[in-house]
Amino acid sequence: MPDSPTLPSVLLDELHRLLGDRLVTSAAVRDHHSHDESYHPRRLPDAVVFPVSTEEVQAIVSACARHGCPMVPFGAGTSLEGHVIPVRGGVTIDLSRMNRILRVSVEDLDATVEPGVTRKQLEKHLQSTGLTFHLDPGADATIGGMAATRASGTTAVRYGTMREVVLGLRVVLPDGRAIETGGRARKSSAGYDLTRLFVGAEGTLGVITAVTLRLHGRPEAIAAATSHFDTIDAAVETVITAIQLGIPVARIELLDEVQLEAVNRFSRLDYPVAPTLFFEFHGLSERDVLEQASAVEEVAREHGARRFDQAVTAETRAALWQARHDAYYAALALRPGSRGWTTDVCVPISRLAECIVETKKDVASSSLVAALVGHVGDGNFHMIFPVRPEDPSELAEVQRLTDRLVERALRLGGTCTGEHGVGLGKQRFMSVEHGEAVDVMRAIKAALDPQDLMNPGKLLPL
Amino acid sequence: MPDSPTLPSVLLDELHRLLGDRLVTSAAVRDHHSHDESYHPRRLPDAVVFPVSTEEVQAIVSACARHGCPMVPFGAGTSLEGHVIPVRGGVTIDLSRMNRILRVSVEDLDATVEPGVTRKQLEKHLQSTGLTFHLDPGADATIGGMAATRASGTTAVRYGTMREVVLGLRVVLPDGRAIETGGRARKSSAGYDLTRLFVGAEGTLGVITAVTLRLHGRPEAIAAATSHFDTIDAAVETVITAIQLGIPVARIELLDEVQLEAVNRFSRLDYPVAPTLFFEFHGLSERDVLEQASAVEEVAREHGARRFDQAVTAETRAALWQARHDAYYAALALRPGSRGWTTDVCVPISRLAECIVETKKDVASSSLVAALVGHVGDGNFHMIFPVRPEDPSELAEVQRLTDRLVERALRLGGTCTGEHGVGLGKQRFMSVEHGEAVDVMRAIKAALDPQDLMNPGKLLPL
Repeated sequence: MPDSPTLPSVLLDELHRLLGDRLVTSAAVRDHHSHDESYHPRRLPDAVVFPVSTEEVQAIVSACARHGCPMVPFGAGTSLEGHVIPVRGGVTIDLSRMNRILRVSVEDLDATVEPGVTRKQLEKHLQSTGLTFHLDPGADATIGGMAATRASGTTAVRYGTMREVVLGLRVVLPDGRAIETGGRARKSSAGYDLTRLFVGAEGTLGVITAVTLRLHGRPEAIAAATSHFDTIDAAVETVITAIQLGIPVARIELLDEVQLEAVNRFSRLDYPVAPTLFFEFHGLSERDVLEQASAVEEVAREHGARRFDQAVTAETRAALWQARHDAYYAALALRPGSRGWTTDVCVPISRLAECIVETKKDVASSSLVAALVGHVGDGNFHMIFPVRPEDPSELAEVQRLTDRLVERALRLGGTCTGEHGVGLGKQRFMSVEHGEAVDVMRAIKAALDPQDLMNPGKLLPL
Repeated sequence: MPDSPTLPSVLLDELHRLLGDRLVTSAAVRDHHSHDESYHPRRLPDAVVFPVSTEEVQAIVSACARHGCPMVPFGAGTSLEGHVIPVRGGVTIDLSRMNRILRVSVEDLDATVEPGVTRKQLEKHLQSTGLTFHLDPGADATIGGMAATRASGTTAVRYGTMREVVLGLRVVLPDGRAIETGGRARKSSAGYDLTRLFVGAEGTLGVITAVTLRLHGRPEAIAAATSHFDTIDAAVETVITAIQLGIPVARIELLDEVQLEAVNRFSRLDYPVAPTLFFEFHGLSERDVLEQASAVEEVAREHGARRFDQAVTAETRAALWQARHDAYYAALALRPGSRGWTTDVCVPISRLAECIVETKKDVASSSLVAALVGHVGDGNFHMIFPVRPEDPSELAEVQRLTDRLVERALRLGGTCTGEHGVGLGKQRFMSVEHGEAVDVMRAIKAALDPQDLMNPGKLLPL
């Protein structure tokens, strides 16, 4: 029978009877669940449970609710905003063993999966079906975590975010009841959109135990390209024009010269050290994707692109996107031993160049370094600051730059977070971004989780 | 000073001071606000107000809230489920004079409009900009009403529904406060998705006073086509295959032989009286749309299409879509003097043919006639019953068939309403469709509208 410093023994007893050795209080496991991939300070949960079914999650939640014990859902721990850190202690519900793909429908282009399925696991499972799940946040996150944070990534410009691709959910409520939201219909007007309420709620309203997803047919043809520019403005103007023309680009990623240099070093590549766009095109035929690529090349050249290189083979395409995926770790490698502090503003695309240029000026006039990588088709970009969390003055400086960046993004009609979520790091911006709408969020939280036990201390401002 | 049979005179006084002659209690105006386009029984509001600003809506809502007076938002009155009927009396808030287009951004492909703007008004306004608002529910509904009912229509298969295209809202809450939800960023993970909560809430959580919408560039090239089949199955299989292949069809509409005959009669056309698909293709170039059309023609012929006729000129295209738009009135014209009872189930597309065939059998074995028109790319179809609301036995028979249809759709993984909303007509299905999730909806309603004054008696089951 495990021992825990702080949990009531009657709760531990109950969880142990329920789960046996899938209730764990060892230091190593608690430590593994004390942090995410970011700079946010660690905190150990009092215990970690590993349920394998919705019924077990219901029993865990009911028991914790009866004992007033906080609960934190945990997927792969790839959050960048401290979502999984149990800031008030309690029980971490690790959903990684709920990783079955429950059904795939080729005819309906949809699937239902348990929350612990990772996106690479799903993609591998789909390989033989002709279907694909396009959303790609970089990390091999779980589908449950991606739903909880309303994640997106490189393909959102064409295929949408978790907001668009989640058709339905199974959710265990804070009182232990399980509900189904949405369903398999492509659209519905049948009442309040609870699916969209739980997508992005960051585990503060309940625990997601199944996700029904829209899938897409694997594209018949794919092409990729890179294009290098003298200025960020020229790159962003290229993107604006391409989108206005309705060219259905599948990915448009911007890397600045700092990020390019980091990527070159980390991945042993030799891209020109300049603002660069990475493109991917999906289409019905080779001719179709080449038509898209030519249309974009014409736009890029009109905006002064230095080069426009098509990645014609699957290998060069894979190398290109591997470099893009390594951007986060490449940026951290600029300062060995650092942790990542990543900003995530999203603005109307017409204001994107202005927002980026001002922000890069801020960074240049500070003592810090930051690499820029952006999903520019959506107006979303990240500044990755490699930081030393043990240096308070350094953290204060990044916070100051982040505050200025968010203030700028909000002034331009944007949001403090395009895809990473609020967690701990963005709580300070919620009231200024949403005003009195935060009261509506609080009213919903109080109505569904009156004891404030579901991932407490996150999302809503303190 | 207007007179009202039932409103407290102190409330009437207050509204009159606020609005002058934009507070109306005449029988004619109250009658105009007593019904929608459907068979649902009329009920007069006690008064109708015509605000011209968010501030006026706030003052109206505050006054009504203080006096415990029910409020019903009203747009164009084109609902098919009784949404605007003031079943508990009170004040109808007619938003038709809030019809300014507040801003359009060509660079960002978005616009902000007041709720009384109709979709045709918006489309006309956009003509000179190169942008377009694709959503087309048939009726010239207001944008506010479309947001409130989560409407969609013929282009949802490619461009999404109001769920996808609404970026943000201004909403007056039941206590009179105004909030902004969402914003102009294409995506955001900043807290609970209040935009999606109010989209589809049917005015039961607040009054929408501004809507920020995603727009699209006007397609460079458009083509249309019709294709006739021997069976509904063959038509639906054609659609499934086209979508699996990733052909980005902009519209795929199915009309059955009853509807074709009605359309022929009503619009003096001579389409073959057979299950028919209407297609529209949008693309980057003539070659692009012709490639799409050829790909679909090949699929249609594989599934035994009798004919595949391209509507090459803008005129023939316009005639084709006019015929489609007239479907509702054409169906009613099958029985002069009738009102429309329209079903709206949406199912996974793999089950669509089965659902349609069973439903047509039900109708054939009844004493009624019904025409079928469907947004089949989404799995959504309507049976339009021309009914005589004064005949209770006839209404009972349509209700029986509707109950069977909804039960069938739910069994197949679908929803009772794809795009019309719940209103009065679908309340009976909410609990069976959503189970205990209805309790979550009730909790949200109680948290935001504790007095139950915002469009009371709608959406949630009684």
